[in-house]
Amino acid sequence: MNTLEESINGIVDGLMEDYENGKAIDKMKIFNHPDNEAIIDILSSLRKIIFPGYFKNRSIKVYTVRNTLSMLIEDVIFKLTKQIAIVLGGSGESNAEIMMLAQEKTLAFIKQLHKIREYIETDVQAAYDGDPAAYSKDEIIYSYPGLFAILVNRIAHELFLLNVPIIPRMMTEYAHRETGIDIHPGASIGKYFFIDHGTGIVIGETTEIGNNVKIYQGVTLGALSTRGGQSLKNKKRHPTIEDNVTIYSGASILGGDTVIGKDVVIGGNAFITHTIAEGAKVSVKNQELRFNYDAAKPVERAEVEEEDAWFYII
Amino acid sequence: MNTLEESINGIVDGLMEDYENGKAIDKMKIFNHPDNEAIIDILSSLRKIIFPGYFKNRSIKVYTVRNTLSMLIEDVIFKLTKQIAIVLGGSGESNAEIMMLAQEKTLAFIKQLHKIREYIETDVQAAYDGDPAAYSKDEIIYSYPGLFAILVNRIAHELFLLNVPIIPRMMTEYAHRETGIDIHPGASIGKYFFIDHGTGIVIGETTEIGNNVKIYQGVTLGALSTRGGQSLKNKKRHPTIEDNVTIYSGASILGGDTVIGKDVVIGGNAFITHTIAEGAKVSVKNQELRFNYDAAKPVERAEVEEEDAWFYII
Amino acid sequence: MNTLEESINGIVDGLMEDYENGKAIDKMKIFNHPDNEAIIDILSSLRKIIFPGYFKNRSIKVYTVRNTLSMLIEDVIFKLTKQIAIVLGGSGESNAEIMMLAQEKTLAFIKQLHKIREYIETDVQAAYDGDPAAYSKDEIIYSYPGLFAILVNRIAHELFLLNVPIIPRMMTEYAHRETGIDIHPGASIGKYFFIDHGTGIVIGETTEIGNNVKIYQGVTLGALSTRGGQSLKNKKRHPTIEDNVTIYSGASILGGDTVIGKDVVIGGNAFITHTIAEGAKVSVKNQELRFNYDAAKPVERAEVEEEDAWFYII
Repeated sequence: MNTLEESINGIVDGLMEDYENGKAIDKMKIFNHPDNEAIIDILSSLRKIIFPGYFKNRSIKVYTVRNTLSMLIEDVIFKLTKQIAIVLGGSGESNAEIMMLAQEKTLAFIKQLHKIREYIETDVQAAYDGDPAAYSKDEIIYSYPGLFAILVNRIAHELFLLNVPIIPRMMTEYAHRETGIDIHPGASIGKYFFIDHGTGIVIGETTEIGNNVKIYQGVTLGALSTRGGQSLKNKKRHPTIEDNVTIYSGASILGGDTVIGKDVVIGGNAFITHTIAEGAKVSVKNQELRFNYDAAKPVERAEVEEEDAWFYII
Repeated sequence: MNTLEESINGIVDGLMEDYENGKAIDKMKIFNHPDNEAIIDILSSLRKIIFPGYFKNRSIKVYTVRNTLSMLIEDVIFKLTKQIAIVLGGSGESNAEIMMLAQEKTLAFIKQLHKIREYIETDVQAAYDGDPAAYSKDEIIYSYPGLFAILVNRIAHELFLLNVPIIPRMMTEYAHRETGIDIHPGASIGKYFFIDHGTGIVIGETTEIGNNVKIYQGVTLGALSTRGGQSLKNKKRHPTIEDNVTIYSGASILGGDTVIGKDVVIGGNAFITHTIAEGAKVSVKNQELRFNYDAAKPVERAEVEEEDAWFYII
Repeated sequence: MNTLEESINGIVDGLMEDYENGKAIDKMKIFNHPDNEAIIDILSSLRKIIFPGYFKNRSIKVYTVRNTLSMLIEDVIFKLTKQIAIVLGGSGESNAEIMMLAQEKTLAFIKQLHKIREYIETDVQAAYDGDPAAYSKDEIIYSYPGLFAILVNRIAHELFLLNVPIIPRMMTEYAHRETGIDIHPGASIGKYFFIDHGTGIVIGETTEIGNNVKIYQGVTLGALSTRGGQSLKNKKRHPTIEDNVTIYSGASILGGDTVIGKDVVIGGNAFITHTIAEGAKVSVKNQELRFNYDAAKPVERAEVEEEDAWFYII
């Protein structure tokens, strides 16, 4: 198979040459990048700390809870410090300084675990109260994708507030892959947050969400702009959602000046680009539907009882 | 690193104290929870039983088909009995009684494999007949997410009918993660069911679907309610879809009293909250579009040929 | 447990009998099917070749870049040749001929890696320029699902053009599972392509996309037809999108004769079934919204500044 060997040599030569052409995609510092598997592993350990008992680790059955917890905490501190040091590595400081800074940020993050647990407890309650298909809180913790996406946002948001680069987004994109729910780590979210079904939800970086908010599949909380690209970085581009708001499936709420007031209900598929005052129930006026029939028999359309259309849960 | 050790001790003390505060998320019975990896493993073995030959197991190449099948069946019975026993464990009966009950439910489920195979054969046929992009049935079985979601629903639905808690939902949420298609285990689905693309589909718990139904991406078969939460449990909240119905992408059909009659076609993005009589073709009237031009040249909008808009496949 | 053993024997007998009934799902040639894990492994190696340094392989740290690259290339050639030979196996030619053909196709594919790298470099640039939430190109390469879906399409499309069956679709369905973005391997896509968020996007087999196109979550580039099923195979069924087009979230563009001209902007949720001339900005006219208030206080709806609604990024 001499020909094949020659072919491979030619291909390798060609690619090696191409690697020298200065493409942005050709960074060669191969020891200097965060490790996606380590990030996922950290999230898995954090989940065990936050829900003790729910996500058992079979290898540590014989230890007491305290020992298990210590091991998990040490493991997270070690791994997270390492990954944060890697992403901070570009700043030019010496290695020991970067390690100290990475450890400081890691410990500052770990101290927020109480707050994350306090909030996630309310999220589980909100899912149970809000979903007639929920048979138990166990089922919610084990299987609801919305709860998983919220948990990862709450973790990633604390790291985002500590100015850790790249890692928070790697975390939320992991949740996005697993759930189809895309919440930027910059979004801040109050207590009792409930996402039902969730696939297709997009919540942008500068979104602010109050307490007791409920969002269904396919909702976008997005930006409205004139294609500014990078010039819009760090500007408030996404809406503010006040307490007790419900947003039904497929609705889009856009713009950094858009405020959805307390107790508002936004109907399915509504497209909102301006502030909605407190207490409003907003819905799309009935679509005009066309009816054709192959057969000639007359069929009348049932009258729509308009009140019903406001509220739907699935 | 004495400081770090002290920090860790302080963090662990704080969390241990917090674990004692009676949060719902703090169940400590760590041997008493179903295992998500075991559930996924069971689904993988069931897939091999249902599609013999398609999903090969390299380690058993030397065995005959009969031996392979026996091993797979025994493996599923052993693992599923164990997981069912775990989720039934809360009922207070003695361990031996729970194991017997778990084994009974497992065997009752296994006896439904014929029916699942009978139905899934028709689903493969429906995908092949309905999709011009399908090059072969092999391609459908190997790669179509819709077929995978339907398969998992058919498995989970049988366990749901046997009153197995939590596990059916863990199964369908696994399929939801893999495919973006969220079908509740309670939904009952007839033969020749075809889901094309599928991402964003939501099919609620009390939905009933007849034979030869075709559904596209982003369709919601949901509930219409006045925020009843848990009080609506076990009520018929989701629509009934009769035979030979096609529902195009982005349509929402809501409400437990909503019946979509035989041979109905629902157009893309339609929002339906009431019964549609047999044979109707329902579509949203043409949207009014606005056209702006930067350049001053006149451009006319092509006339829309209305008939075309009814039917689209992708 | 004699009863259980008898039950298992009965179940196995029943299934063995059922396997003989000639179902399409019962192919028994268990050595003759492509291996999904091998396909994913090939994609992982290709990603390392395309982005050298970004996706490190810890086991090869001590080698030079050239050695690493040679190993990766040889590995891909070996594995891809094997998988292609498997899917070509049905054609009746002798084993050696099939192996030669599989190797030819594999080498022809490998020679396209330069082109794929040239295009993906522009995609990274487009994401950075277009997204104010992008903090660095590293973040885009590590975490953006849109970039991953485009990469897999660019790989699968080259194999599709070489008439490799099944494998290209297995690749794009892997990306679909990971990202919720469903791009058929047949779709051809120009340079500087940017997908933001992406969940729910569907791009059909015969779609053609020019340079510098930007697409948001939930967009369908689909077919419009009269339920032709398999009779439509190989016909142009999906739209053509020319250079510099932006398509906002939830829009549907349907039909093989539909051409979206240069510089067009399509607004959110628009449903387009006909050609749009160059330079147009098309948006859905403002929805009529209904406002109800529980409280009696008057609230006025803010006037919609129509220009704003055209452009939104998230």
